[in-house]
Amino acid sequence: MNQLLRSHANQIIREAIAAVQPDAAVQRALKRMTFSGRVLLVSAGKAAWQMAKAASDALGDRIEKGVVVTKYEHVMGPIANFDCFEAGHPVPDENSFKGTQAALDLVADLKEEDTVLFLLSGGGSALFEKPLVPAAELQDITGQLLACGADITEINTIRKRLSAVKGGRFAQFVWPARVEAVILSDILGDPLDMIASGPACPDSTTAEDAQRIAKKYDLRMSDAARALLAIETPKVLNNVRSQINGSVRELCAAAEKTCTALGYTPILLTDQLCCQAKEAGSFLASILKTHASDNRSLAFIAGGETVVKLVGKGLGGRNQELALAAAAGIANMPNAAVFSVGSDGTDGPTDAAGGYADGDTVRELKAHGLTVDAVLSNNDAYHALEKTGGLIMTGPTGTNVNDVAVALLRSQL
Amino acid sequence: MNQLLRSHANQIIREAIAAVQPDAAVQRALKRMTFSGRVLLVSAGKAAWQMAKAASDALGDRIEKGVVVTKYEHVMGPIANFDCFEAGHPVPDENSFKGTQAALDLVADLKEEDTVLFLLSGGGSALFEKPLVPAAELQDITGQLLACGADITEINTIRKRLSAVKGGRFAQFVWPARVEAVILSDILGDPLDMIASGPACPDSTTAEDAQRIAKKYDLRMSDAARALLAIETPKVLNNVRSQINGSVRELCAAAEKTCTALGYTPILLTDQLCCQAKEAGSFLASILKTHASDNRSLAFIAGGETVVKLVGKGLGGRNQELALAAAAGIANMPNAAVFSVGSDGTDGPTDAAGGYADGDTVRELKAHGLTVDAVLSNNDAYHALEKTGGLIMTGPTGTNVNDVAVALLRSQL
Repeated sequence: MNQLLRSHANQIIREAIAAVQPDAAVQRALKRMTFSGRVLLVSAGKAAWQMAKAASDALGDRIEKGVVVTKYEHVMGPIANFDCFEAGHPVPDENSFKGTQAALDLVADLKEEDTVLFLLSGGGSALFEKPLVPAAELQDITGQLLACGADITEINTIRKRLSAVKGGRFAQFVWPARVEAVILSDILGDPLDMIASGPACPDSTTAEDAQRIAKKYDLRMSDAARALLAIETPKVLNNVRSQINGSVRELCAAAEKTCTALGYTPILLTDQLCCQAKEAGSFLASILKTHASDNRSLAFIAGGETVVKLVGKGLGGRNQELALAAAAGIANMPNAAVFSVGSDGTDGPTDAAGGYADGDTVRELKAHGLTVDAVLSNNDAYHALEKTGGLIMTGPTGTNVNDVAVALLRSQL
Repeated sequence: MNQLLRSHANQIIREAIAAVQPDAAVQRALKRMTFSGRVLLVSAGKAAWQMAKAASDALGDRIEKGVVVTKYEHVMGPIANFDCFEAGHPVPDENSFKGTQAALDLVADLKEEDTVLFLLSGGGSALFEKPLVPAAELQDITGQLLACGADITEINTIRKRLSAVKGGRFAQFVWPARVEAVILSDILGDPLDMIASGPACPDSTTAEDAQRIAKKYDLRMSDAARALLAIETPKVLNNVRSQINGSVRELCAAAEKTCTALGYTPILLTDQLCCQAKEAGSFLASILKTHASDNRSLAFIAGGETVVKLVGKGLGGRNQELALAAAAGIANMPNAAVFSVGSDGTDGPTDAAGGYADGDTVRELKAHGLTVDAVLSNNDAYHALEKTGGLIMTGPTGTNVNDVAVALLRSQL
């Protein structure tokens, strides 16, 4: 492994993630709010605990009670007056439903002058959920969608209709009380109705869309579920104000800043990457190969959220696949590295945040009897990168604004 | 369709392809050469006749004699002082051997001050060959290697040792005379030892490698062939200068030049693109979306050769798929286009050279009841682009240096 490039990667990742922490954003959003009646807090998503803590620190006892639903091991400690739940992600589990029910109980029977401070971050789709079909069926349908390579928009379009809280239904439940939503965006382009499947946002997708997607992927489901797909979600909500804070654009900008400080010329390719993870890795490697002879230190930055088509039974995530696929293209280049990281600190069903590969990676894999092709065919990037020291471990970061991939080229001059 | 962007696309394509015509490549290379003694010409490959003609036109009687070996029906007429052979491709035949022997006879017994002008283009592996074993055995061994799943590097490692001209042996034969090689490359990254199996390039593979491969695949061969595997190929050649003049790099450079003339700032991403065509299209569209607000006229250029995974029964090619996939990402953008073209003028099994898409394409497809997803699922980009006027038709171009894709963003200011 190229220790210099790896240390640069670590610094870029650390500083980029630090720049998109939710605390300051929540505080900024709160300054634009006034409250009259009761104030209740509901915070859901992978950054739910940090967002709730920031709100609690700012408003203290003005918040009567709160419910926090976040991912396992994401609760960093108790928050006065709040109940914190840890639950399943990316597949919702009983604790998701329990936490969500507690939130619904908390905000039932409010009056018009009351306010629900609703803090939403990525992962909310799984963590904030009250399914209208048996949990096992919901999990099965979600699993089918993930396995087919359905995109997040398609997945959410289906899930909104199988849920009592998604697609604006949470805000409808809170009515006539107000919802003050503060949103950390993990969806490219920040479409409000797609972030955590839009519990407090009028839904722009239609029952017709849902039925078309079910047909496209030939989804297996019960008659009850199929009937739910035909029921419309709210198209107008007059009791909600939403403020978006933080996005992958800021993550990329922060990465650019650190790259500059390290002597690289940063080139932002995109903050809306959405293609297949391994193909994005190949593309980034192709870019590095071409510019290797420039004798400049360059950092190509691509933020967004790639997709993985599951064909094997291995362990990995989109960021790890991207990095590993790039490894093949930059094999034996002495001065090149590609890494990709989820800003939330988790990548797929693993304890890694992403993956790092450089010119040594293919050789190191070979010493373990592995090839990039074989590993990717089994979607087993985690175990391969584990052997090369290419796993990026950050632990939970407390934020979630998509991923950033960086392709580094260090001038030898 | 955006007529302005389409006309820019047409101009970029026309001028880029013109710049990589074999005759233009040879003329550029000749300007860097000086000759002292006798000058002999050997030209082999699919573009051998065009390259030889260009050299003859430029140098006239300064070239004493020449031998041209190209594919059947590729000799366009006589060239004064040159013997032209047509031969088998991709499988070498008796005419390949006859032409190659004529070339060897031509350059035997040269002196140090003499020069062999060696013009090489794609297809040279089959067209320029003198096997050291009977042709039938050579074919049998190649067949065994293909059947075992040997990779191209392994196949070439074996074949170089069964040939009197590959793996640097042609240049060794010419020594002490100089070899001035001009190469038209159809392999990404221009690995000199892979293009036509490197007749004028020091060989990086060893006899040990060859013997290991023969053992690994348990190859059946005669004792004579087995003995040849033990004989080393040249590792150093001090009488050769190679100029790659005519490659995807120059195709990209020419595209950059026209983009600049049209008012775009060109950004060369890569000339070694090798990922899936539709994923490359998605990546390019993501780049345009992010930079749409820059208010600059930008042209992102990616040369190379993408791949297509055939799953449907439609008609198309990798360049058409790339453009069509990009259409989804740039839908409704008023100032964006993505196009991709094969420099040989053919894309897949179609009469088109590539595809063009812009912000209007998705809407135009919809008017025909088509979606990008559905079309790509059936690998039917040709019929879709036919409907939107997005087919790029050039006819056969007379060159072959891979593909170039360009993503255009026109400032509205």
